[in-house]
Amino acid sequence: MKIDILTLFPEMFTNVLNQSIIGRAIKNGIIKLNVINFREYSSDKHKRVDDYPYGGGSGMVLMNQPIFDALKSITKEKKKYKIIYLTPKGKTFNQEMALSLSKEENLIFICGHYEGIDQRIIDYWVTDEISIGDYVLTGGELPTMVVIDTVARLIPGVLNNENSFKDESFYSGLLEYPHYTRPADYNGMKVPKVLLSGNHKLIEEWRLKKSIELTIKRRPDLIEKFLKNNKFTQKEREKFKNIINEILMNNN
Amino acid sequence: MKIDILTLFPEMFTNVLNQSIIGRAIKNGIIKLNVINFREYSSDKHKRVDDYPYGGGSGMVLMNQPIFDALKSITKEKKKYKIIYLTPKGKTFNQEMALSLSKEENLIFICGHYEGIDQRIIDYWVTDEISIGDYVLTGGELPTMVVIDTVARLIPGVLNNENSFKDESFYSGLLEYPHYTRPADYNGMKVPKVLLSGNHKLIEEWRLKKSIELTIKRRPDLIEKFLKNNKFTQKEREKFKNIINEILMNNN
Repeated sequence: MKIDILTLFPEMFTNVLNQSIIGRAIKNGIIKLNVINFREYSSDKHKRVDDYPYGGGSGMVLMNQPIFDALKSITKEKKKYKIIYLTPKGKTFNQEMALSLSKEENLIFICGHYEGIDQRIIDYWVTDEISIGDYVLTGGELPTMVVIDTVARLIPGVLNNENSFKDESFYSGLLEYPHYTRPADYNGMKVPKVLLSGNHKLIEEWRLKKSIELTIKRRPDLIEKFLKNNKFTQKEREKFKNIINEILMNNN
Repeated sequence: MKIDILTLFPEMFTNVLNQSIIGRAIKNGIIKLNVINFREYSSDKHKRVDDYPYGGGSGMVLMNQPIFDALKSITKEKKKYKIIYLTPKGKTFNQEMALSLSKEENLIFICGHYEGIDQRIIDYWVTDEISIGDYVLTGGELPTMVVIDTVARLIPGVLNNENSFKDESFYSGLLEYPHYTRPADYNGMKVPKVLLSGNHKLIEEWRLKKSIELTIKRRPDLIEKFLKNNKFTQKEREKFKNIINEILMNNN
């Protein structure tokens, strides 16, 4: 996959996307990263990229010319590739969107700043406006990195098989159960006995119950979605409902 | 504000948090950043930080000892400061949480990797488990940066007054209206006439209508919340309802 990033802060990307699993995917040639400082495309003699908003108001707006010209340098046909603009007014990013983006051959990201970019850039070029959540950041760079990281680990070959498999595991849709590692007793804080039992059936049941418990407590919105998942048999669904009822009864 | 970050990838933070508005806040002494590689606290002769999970399963779990010792080096009293662990099972981050965190004097972040950290670290130390959205990242570093960026710009003095004021503007709770800057005609693509009119009342009305239109289309969940906002008078609320009804009628 080729990833192009249009930004005013190219240095922000250097150390971040070179690290960890994504860095390995770049080294292995699975991902090709191209970071462009669109200020270099400004035809203004002072390399200006922003101007005051029409209609008044605070803040500055990123102008058409530098971004149009930077995009034209990457792609001749508009809307052939996904051109993504990160903005609080976008569609809320989630794992399904990431899975769909991971199948593209080229992703192009535009990182906004200040009040954002001229609407004509969005109308002409942008295929996807995405928001990573209901909060306000100083620019589009961090959310672009978040989307790239989430998407990249879904590309075949980026994670090892063991981890990839995990994502499609039985529990997907629930919050994760607690993890413990050695020692079994750390300054008097003990690992739950069942995890030391070697009884895999009991361990599975404990983990499922812990996952459902936490999901009910923190994200009740996910429980309903989980029960509707059509990969489960009627018998499995009954089992989940029994666990849920048991937890709810103990809490009351 | 002092911000401590426990991570295995300290280099990821260098270029990101030095840029833009956050970098300026660090230079001005408004924010003090302390990035700690907790591998240095490992008492293992190979500086190991992870181990297999009790109860089986794929992936590794970050051990107690290095993180316990790194945290003890920062804070003597547990739960005196906010200790934040970024995890998909956390509470979903939003602007209100950011505002509340921006009032703290010290934030401590733990960046997980692999399957996560030993639950005993969470039970003993962590005050807030936070998720930045419903998607899976390779580690806690990017979400930590997202939270820091969102929180930092709310600390008084970090943004200039003009921008801070904007956040509490009339439109908060709706998605933003489109922005335009010069030229008024870019290769035949024109700025909406009303924005060139100089008529501030008409411009305000156009922007409000555009904001409501986009919010209905993309985030209908926000419209109800917006109407319930108790800062509005009954008359204002009636006006919004009229605009909403008009838009819905035109769409049918």
